[in-house]
Amino acid sequence: MRGVTAEYDRDISVNAVAHQPGIGGEYAADLSAGWIVGGGVNGGFLLSVIANAIRASVPTKPDPISVSAYYLSASVPGPATVTTQVKRDGGSIATVAADLLQDGTARISALATFGDLAALPEASETTAVAPDLPPREQCVPNTMAPEELRAIVPMMERFDMLFHPDHIGWAVGQPSGKGVISAWFRLKDGREPDPISLLAAVDLLPPVTFDLGRPGWAPTLELTAHVRAVPAPGWLRLQHATRNVAGGMFEEDCEVWDSAGHLVAQSRQLARLPR
Amino acid sequence: MRGVTAEYDRDISVNAVAHQPGIGGEYAADLSAGWIVGGGVNGGFLLSVIANAIRASVPTKPDPISVSAYYLSASVPGPATVTTQVKRDGGSIATVAADLLQDGTARISALATFGDLAALPEASETTAVAPDLPPREQCVPNTMAPEELRAIVPMMERFDMLFHPDHIGWAVGQPSGKGVISAWFRLKDGREPDPISLLAAVDLLPPVTFDLGRPGWAPTLELTAHVRAVPAPGWLRLQHATRNVAGGMFEEDCEVWDSAGHLVAQSRQLARLPR
Repeated sequence: MRGVTAEYDRDISVNAVAHQPGIGGEYAADLSAGWIVGGGVNGGFLLSVIANAIRASVPTKPDPISVSAYYLSASVPGPATVTTQVKRDGGSIATVAADLLQDGTARISALATFGDLAALPEASETTAVAPDLPPREQCVPNTMAPEELRAIVPMMERFDMLFHPDHIGWAVGQPSGKGVISAWFRLKDGREPDPISLLAAVDLLPPVTFDLGRPGWAPTLELTAHVRAVPAPGWLRLQHATRNVAGGMFEEDCEVWDSAGHLVAQSRQLARLPR
Repeated sequence: MRGVTAEYDRDISVNAVAHQPGIGGEYAADLSAGWIVGGGVNGGFLLSVIANAIRASVPTKPDPISVSAYYLSASVPGPATVTTQVKRDGGSIATVAADLLQDGTARISALATFGDLAALPEASETTAVAPDLPPREQCVPNTMAPEELRAIVPMMERFDMLFHPDHIGWAVGQPSGKGVISAWFRLKDGREPDPISLLAAVDLLPPVTFDLGRPGWAPTLELTAHVRAVPAPGWLRLQHATRNVAGGMFEEDCEVWDSAGHLVAQSRQLARLPR
């Protein structure tokens, strides 16, 4: 891992056990206990690990454009294997199926389309509006979380997260009920965002159900992330929102905005309500 | 296909070539030329065909809850094969990988989670707002489309679609530029909506880019649909919206509302801008 100085890059690294670029392969990972949240290893972080393996399988298409992950069982810290199978590699994009396994147990099945984001047209038009976050010094840092919470969410030590003060009422028993949480975000070690780290960023805020007065772990069934542009260096703005709770499940939409004011990732997940 | 009287049910029917419930199988389909739109067979209709094969593979989990499809090449009318592989079947849900092929060429790779929607809790809370459609007699029916358009979009004969008059300006060269299209919808033959037909419904409106003044075919890269509840009988309301055009692509969100006023399906697709 020459040249890798940031914790995040070490944590998502994979080693090819056997692979044939353009066809697929098998990659070894070691899931860090540092990314635990609630009942398992964080699902967004795992997307970055899987994406790193896919990138190795289709080296001419380095960037995730769309990734869909189905979460089959909770991942635990320790060794894991990612297998990849290239479904189509032609023109400017490649589509790859990937599975993450631990001790032969399926943890995640995924499909992804990769390409070269830097080669895409730069023009963009958007009616989406960035989260209206106050300046960082007026936001509530994750370092203010109580010791006992930080002990069960070691993931919180991996990044700086500065919450919108209007979206943190749940921390003191006063959820807004609106179903929105937003925050400033950056990885530790000054590690700048890139398309693969955005896949983690879409799943690092607390479950939006906290803001509905439903605390607790909300297991993801499915999460699809679209990376819409290469992020500029600097702080990101993250926002989770939900509009529909039904059948014991809710959708959680995440937007990631970069320091240049671009919407760089959009995701939606379907998750179970906390018990 | 005993008891099947509606065109839609005949068109999505599959026959098991070889299958082992709970494990997977191979299913033969015959894609009807009636579902052609632009450069191929409609992607939502194909989701229904794939879902029908998945249902046969996990018969105790009859309903799609989440389906993610990656479109690899345009499907053409004629024979097709759907292969399924059960990734996990446990508790109340099963997750299945499926591929649709024609003459050995991969058309679609998909992942899906199936379950029993009728067994889920009925409680729902939503802040989503149904499309504000005028009464049907004030909307613009698809039967008013010019002959030459209907000739290249035979799919339009498969259903009744009554457009919001404010969202049909593109048909006369006056797109609103807002990126929204909504319509009343029902399948032919009085075929009532069900969870599998909702997978088609999320991709049957014209591309939302029509309303941005960009007519033409917008090939889907990825589409994920969440079925949030069993739809009530009667007309559906469909709405497409986009907020972000970037990198030559756009996201298209679809909502499907049933006659009882419930949000029964949500989808998002990532598609290429028309050339």
